[in-house]
Amino acid sequence: MKAEIITIGDELLIGQTVDTNSAWIGQELSSLGFDIHRRTSVHDKREEIIGILSDSSSRSDVVIITGGLGPTSDDITKKTLCEFFNTRLVMNLHVLEMVESMMQRRGFPMNENNRKQAEVPESCKVLTNAAGTAPGMWFEKNGKVFISMPGVPSEMKYIMREHVLPELAKRYTSQVIIHKNIMTYGTPEARLAEILTGFEAGLPGCIKLAYLPSSGIIKLRLTATGSRRDELLPIIAVQVRKLYETIPEYIYGEDEETLEMAVGRLLRDKNLTLCTAESCTGGNISHKITSVPGSSDYFRGSVVAYSNDIKTSVLGVDPLLIQRDGAVSESVAVAMAEGARKLMKTDFAVATTGIAGPSGGTDLKPVGTLWVAVSHGLGTIAEKHTFTTDRVTNITRFTFVALNLLRKQIISA
Amino acid sequence: MKAEIITIGDELLIGQTVDTNSAWIGQELSSLGFDIHRRTSVHDKREEIIGILSDSSSRSDVVIITGGLGPTSDDITKKTLCEFFNTRLVMNLHVLEMVESMMQRRGFPMNENNRKQAEVPESCKVLTNAAGTAPGMWFEKNGKVFISMPGVPSEMKYIMREHVLPELAKRYTSQVIIHKNIMTYGTPEARLAEILTGFEAGLPGCIKLAYLPSSGIIKLRLTATGSRRDELLPIIAVQVRKLYETIPEYIYGEDEETLEMAVGRLLRDKNLTLCTAESCTGGNISHKITSVPGSSDYFRGSVVAYSNDIKTSVLGVDPLLIQRDGAVSESVAVAMAEGARKLMKTDFAVATTGIAGPSGGTDLKPVGTLWVAVSHGLGTIAEKHTFTTDRVTNITRFTFVALNLLRKQIISA
Repeated sequence: MKAEIITIGDELLIGQTVDTNSAWIGQELSSLGFDIHRRTSVHDKREEIIGILSDSSSRSDVVIITGGLGPTSDDITKKTLCEFFNTRLVMNLHVLEMVESMMQRRGFPMNENNRKQAEVPESCKVLTNAAGTAPGMWFEKNGKVFISMPGVPSEMKYIMREHVLPELAKRYTSQVIIHKNIMTYGTPEARLAEILTGFEAGLPGCIKLAYLPSSGIIKLRLTATGSRRDELLPIIAVQVRKLYETIPEYIYGEDEETLEMAVGRLLRDKNLTLCTAESCTGGNISHKITSVPGSSDYFRGSVVAYSNDIKTSVLGVDPLLIQRDGAVSESVAVAMAEGARKLMKTDFAVATTGIAGPSGGTDLKPVGTLWVAVSHGLGTIAEKHTFTTDRVTNITRFTFVALNLLRKQIISA
Repeated sequence: MKAEIITIGDELLIGQTVDTNSAWIGQELSSLGFDIHRRTSVHDKREEIIGILSDSSSRSDVVIITGGLGPTSDDITKKTLCEFFNTRLVMNLHVLEMVESMMQRRGFPMNENNRKQAEVPESCKVLTNAAGTAPGMWFEKNGKVFISMPGVPSEMKYIMREHVLPELAKRYTSQVIIHKNIMTYGTPEARLAEILTGFEAGLPGCIKLAYLPSSGIIKLRLTATGSRRDELLPIIAVQVRKLYETIPEYIYGEDEETLEMAVGRLLRDKNLTLCTAESCTGGNISHKITSVPGSSDYFRGSVVAYSNDIKTSVLGVDPLLIQRDGAVSESVAVAMAEGARKLMKTDFAVATTGIAGPSGGTDLKPVGTLWVAVSHGLGTIAEKHTFTTDRVTNITRFTFVALNLLRKQIISA
């Protein structure tokens, strides 16, 4: 089945907003077996919207539209949809009730713009939106399906997960496509590809391998295509087993597992607790770990010791160490980890000290230098890493290095 | 002048790659005064590429194409461009030399695929690429310009900056378009639009207003269009002044300033220091603040007190308060902020305690409940907020609420 994605909004065309919605929708639809063969962004203009709707209806079975549904006057999508589908706006009392109760919970009065969000084209099926005020809309015309949703990612995802994906899966029985992701960390893509040359050459014809790198994490995606799910599952399972045999030291998880999820899973399994002591990562390790639901079961807390004062006064790092070796050093990383573990009474502590940049680097300790330490009952280990990217990327890379060292130490504990 | 962007590659359609190239190109072209009126992604397929090229030539003056120029066999863009422009591939010795010297520098032997990269369509003007092996290509057909570049962002940007943008700027003296962003926080889009009804109605014809909301931050974008930059600048300045007069309480900055940048700017201007005490935000406030270069000038550190033990042992919160009012309460938020300020000896401290979800909510304190407190020399203020989104979005919303309360307190300090 052919699908296409239309995103509406000047902010996408002039590059103020990066279109992450299309990527997410593309992933979801392709895992349902749709061929997403086109993606288009157009202005918030009647003629542009009418033009692309009519083009898309001639080439696609399913058309997903996002954007242009806000309450403000620059949003003309809803009016234009009425024109294209030859219908009119009517007040939907159920949606009105939802908008009213959301505004009440947030403590804001209802106004005319909020009321207008409850007006929907008469001929569409309304897709309720518990994440925001603009509902989604499901239209059908000449056997083709058109779905319009707000452009706010959390609202679009809510409507897709709750309404659109289940309905599309039910309605279209297409070729079976199964994706299986194996998550790796710790080796660059080119090196990984070299190690996996033999594995790749031995893959059966129905399976393709893709490398999806992001900030040092490389997702290996196996895609199996065929007519029956129950035939494909064992074939893909054999290849997953081979991967585990070939690169056991780099695989940290499967599917969409993140490093912080893997760390949490291991801590929970072993009934262990964790804290962090962060300088250059500025709280990002703690932020990642606490983004995982249920992390309060194993995570106690963190001290972000951005200034040296806090390293000594809160974490108990000996000021002579900082004076002798500098704040970015093995001894200080080790002392931070040990101090945090003592202060917060946990089984594990991870500590970082480094130079994220853009300034603060020296010849001996350039921007991108990181010392990371992991402390637990049996001792403390420290590693030095050097990256060469910008501040924000360095912080991300530092965080991943720390999470991975922590993960390996928990496994061997 | 009308421009459009075509990106070629299955990875964009199935969402493996987020299309950041289009956003970057959109920004660059619109600052040159081009109207980017469409952006399309298509498969690596001959018919798809021919189809979109011929559609685009009927509606745009300049067509920017990226992707499909890699050395691997699934890249058929170059062959298809030859077909569309009715020309043939020839070996370009200058490009061959560049590829050879690049491979040598990287320590790789030349192979057949590398040689093929030096083959270019005979009728195009070659745009050399010092950042990679595939050159860019400039075609002209019926007065329209088509530029094809590799999809690797660093290579595309090199070719754009070095060749394409200077040439386009020279060739097209087009309409001037100026964007000015005013960043707001603290009121929903619909309410803001209501307040700004009069402002919007009074805008001169050459200026348009757009609302770009994201997690509670609403960017107000004023777009001025005309023939002369020096005429538009004062006109837009008048409207910016009017906005400041109409909604002073909601504007926190301009252009691409974030709340954490605004907080940093205010602290630096007033020579004040900050720390955070975070429960439900898990270190995200600290992470945001330290993402800003130079934040070590005003940010001392943070205690992420995820467990109640840490709230009492490190921040000095009276355990009787937690017992009496619960960890998510005004009294605990206040005690956390005051404890952190004392511990880390700063002028300001911001503290959060709340329920990010998905579990942990009660009837009285549902998921999404936040208490935030800001403490400084003159006292401590606390606010309660309630959100209704998922865990990750709640954490973002909590963070913004905290940063904004902090911002307002710094201003009035």
